[in-house]
Amino acid sequence: MINETMAGLGRKRSSIRELFEYGKQQAALVGTENVYDFSLGNPSIPAPPEVDEAIISAVRDLDSISVHGYTSAAGNPALREMVTADLNKRYGTNLTSFNIFFTCGAAPSLVSVVKALAVEGSEFIAQAPFFPEYTTFVNYNGGKLVVVPPDYPDFQINLAGMEAAINEHTQGVIINSPNNPTGVIYSEETLKKLAALLTEKEKEYGHPIYIISDEPYRELVYDNAFVPFMPSIYHDTIVCYSFSKALSVPGERIGYALVADTCTDELAVMDAIVGAARVIGHVCAPSLQQRVVGLCAGVRPDMEAYDKNRLRLYNALSEYGYTCVKPQGAFYLFVKAPGDDANAFSEEAKKRNLLIVSGESFGCPDYFRISTCVAPDMIERALPHFEALMEEYR
Amino acid sequence: MINETMAGLGRKRSSIRELFEYGKQQAALVGTENVYDFSLGNPSIPAPPEVDEAIISAVRDLDSISVHGYTSAAGNPALREMVTADLNKRYGTNLTSFNIFFTCGAAPSLVSVVKALAVEGSEFIAQAPFFPEYTTFVNYNGGKLVVVPPDYPDFQINLAGMEAAINEHTQGVIINSPNNPTGVIYSEETLKKLAALLTEKEKEYGHPIYIISDEPYRELVYDNAFVPFMPSIYHDTIVCYSFSKALSVPGERIGYALVADTCTDELAVMDAIVGAARVIGHVCAPSLQQRVVGLCAGVRPDMEAYDKNRLRLYNALSEYGYTCVKPQGAFYLFVKAPGDDANAFSEEAKKRNLLIVSGESFGCPDYFRISTCVAPDMIERALPHFEALMEEYR
Repeated sequence: MINETMAGLGRKRSSIRELFEYGKQQAALVGTENVYDFSLGNPSIPAPPEVDEAIISAVRDLDSISVHGYTSAAGNPALREMVTADLNKRYGTNLTSFNIFFTCGAAPSLVSVVKALAVEGSEFIAQAPFFPEYTTFVNYNGGKLVVVPPDYPDFQINLAGMEAAINEHTQGVIINSPNNPTGVIYSEETLKKLAALLTEKEKEYGHPIYIISDEPYRELVYDNAFVPFMPSIYHDTIVCYSFSKALSVPGERIGYALVADTCTDELAVMDAIVGAARVIGHVCAPSLQQRVVGLCAGVRPDMEAYDKNRLRLYNALSEYGYTCVKPQGAFYLFVKAPGDDANAFSEEAKKRNLLIVSGESFGCPDYFRISTCVAPDMIERALPHFEALMEEYR
Repeated sequence: MINETMAGLGRKRSSIRELFEYGKQQAALVGTENVYDFSLGNPSIPAPPEVDEAIISAVRDLDSISVHGYTSAAGNPALREMVTADLNKRYGTNLTSFNIFFTCGAAPSLVSVVKALAVEGSEFIAQAPFFPEYTTFVNYNGGKLVVVPPDYPDFQINLAGMEAAINEHTQGVIINSPNNPTGVIYSEETLKKLAALLTEKEKEYGHPIYIISDEPYRELVYDNAFVPFMPSIYHDTIVCYSFSKALSVPGERIGYALVADTCTDELAVMDAIVGAARVIGHVCAPSLQQRVVGLCAGVRPDMEAYDKNRLRLYNALSEYGYTCVKPQGAFYLFVKAPGDDANAFSEEAKKRNLLIVSGESFGCPDYFRISTCVAPDMIERALPHFEALMEEYR
């Protein structure tokens, strides 16, 4: 007599994890060099030197209790202030430590925000393609995830779909830009239109509709692309951020929830996030990592390796006849599956030990995702297989 | 329109936190030396040198991605194995990495276990006095907390009360030994009686009743006291552990859930914990800290400073006429309030800037808790006030 829903969620790994585990098994059978694993979105570049320097100087120079001791639930105020100071400098905002609540990464940040906003019957909208775990985070924390169809072929925001999806139960709209899996950055123009639509709908339904901006890839951009800062565009914005990708520290579990100072019921929203975090067993974010991200708030990732991979894969796949929007950020390509059935195509690819993720769980069953955060030599070994697969489908 | 329950939980700090914040305000007004803050259970000794050595060698000698990268949700298997190897050596068990799921401390471990076990109408029993946050962890994660009255004056387990509280809805019994707030270690004899009672009740109701053994203070014992290892006593045991106190790293958020290999439905229980953790946004425990606790699994805290404080406070308070069970572990004293009303007594103490925690939220409104993890000179300055207060009440 246990909770079978939870056991089911524990048993059923995400399809991405399944594929990754399969790749490890195949590597043992046929050799690592004959498996081409494009499944996981794991940063493949080391953490910038500032990260390890911050760690070493903290444990060497500071007193143990201030480094490893409890902080307040929201996190060390001075370190939060360093994070908002960096945001204010970049975006001209006036955020303070009170706007930020450090979390153990973006996942519990999203969970806390959903729990904070969810009341009886609440709906949260996600724009396809979207990170598949949103379904778990929303549907098991008091809300219901409503998915808006993709905006083919540019993968911006489907404004008509958004308008059709919003109703009196809508409490939040989750957006993710630069986007996993497409690498698209939502344009300022699109975001302003979304903001206008939500402002109008807020009036129509007489309650706030928050944008929940999930931004783990904010710093991962190519060609100096600019990622609009959502709190500067829409008053009711809550940002869920992770330092995992920006500082290549995904295992360290450090991120935040940011309630914009322009939010309706700003203080009550933050109170509810604090309460929701308490309910899920949050005490504080890892104290040493709070220090790291405070000190490294201005450090940006070295995108050179990711960019080389992006261009090599994008150019080669385009040459072979694949269709794909050119990513402006993040470290994925989202590619149209020959035959329009990504499940079938990824099974076909799997026969060649080419591991690509069907877009089905992202809400786009005719596309597949490949991670570009991989070893360059694996890309070279994999390319002939991509070419041969396309030939098969012609 | 936000979730008012969550906002309420966020707004209402725990009474312990309130007292601590009050102490900081008073210190600014009357001087730090005139405030005697016994409120928080914050380790006051530095982390053992092995902790910082493990951190420095990891970031200096290992590759960045293996130190800071994602681990599996349960944690790095080799590091989990180091933790179970230490347990096996101490307790003669046969645990493996599969029995352990690393969490961001004991709090999310408890939450995940409650969520994993809670079905419609489930009840979880706690023995008073108990850690007040159990109420939040259980009541907002699908269960209902049922409190068994204290076993005065020894604060062992109230077996008659336990028997009366168990019914067909009982899914778990939460115990905490060494106990916060009493410092009592539940004796092997008591625990065996509890195990026998639960085994009988499991048969009567035809389903498992798990012991959830919350053990953040397992390594904090005095006079070489032995803490019985619950999985060796009762088959259906799940341990929720934190390294916060043992290694003085409470801010780092590292602990585990351990499903004993003797548990009914062992694998399904672990699956449900994995699923529940996923629902609350767990991705993995902080990767660097996983390494620390693996390497430091055999490191024990230096109890000398805590022991001196314990004896000084226990002896002095006893001499003044206070009644208190002598702690065998942890770093608290649980003292009978003169006048039998701990709320009133702690208010009286507060007038002298003597900050002690009423036992009300622990389920014992006639006792108060003082932390012994404080500066020795503060104890000396506070003792005359304890003496004078007792005089007032005579």
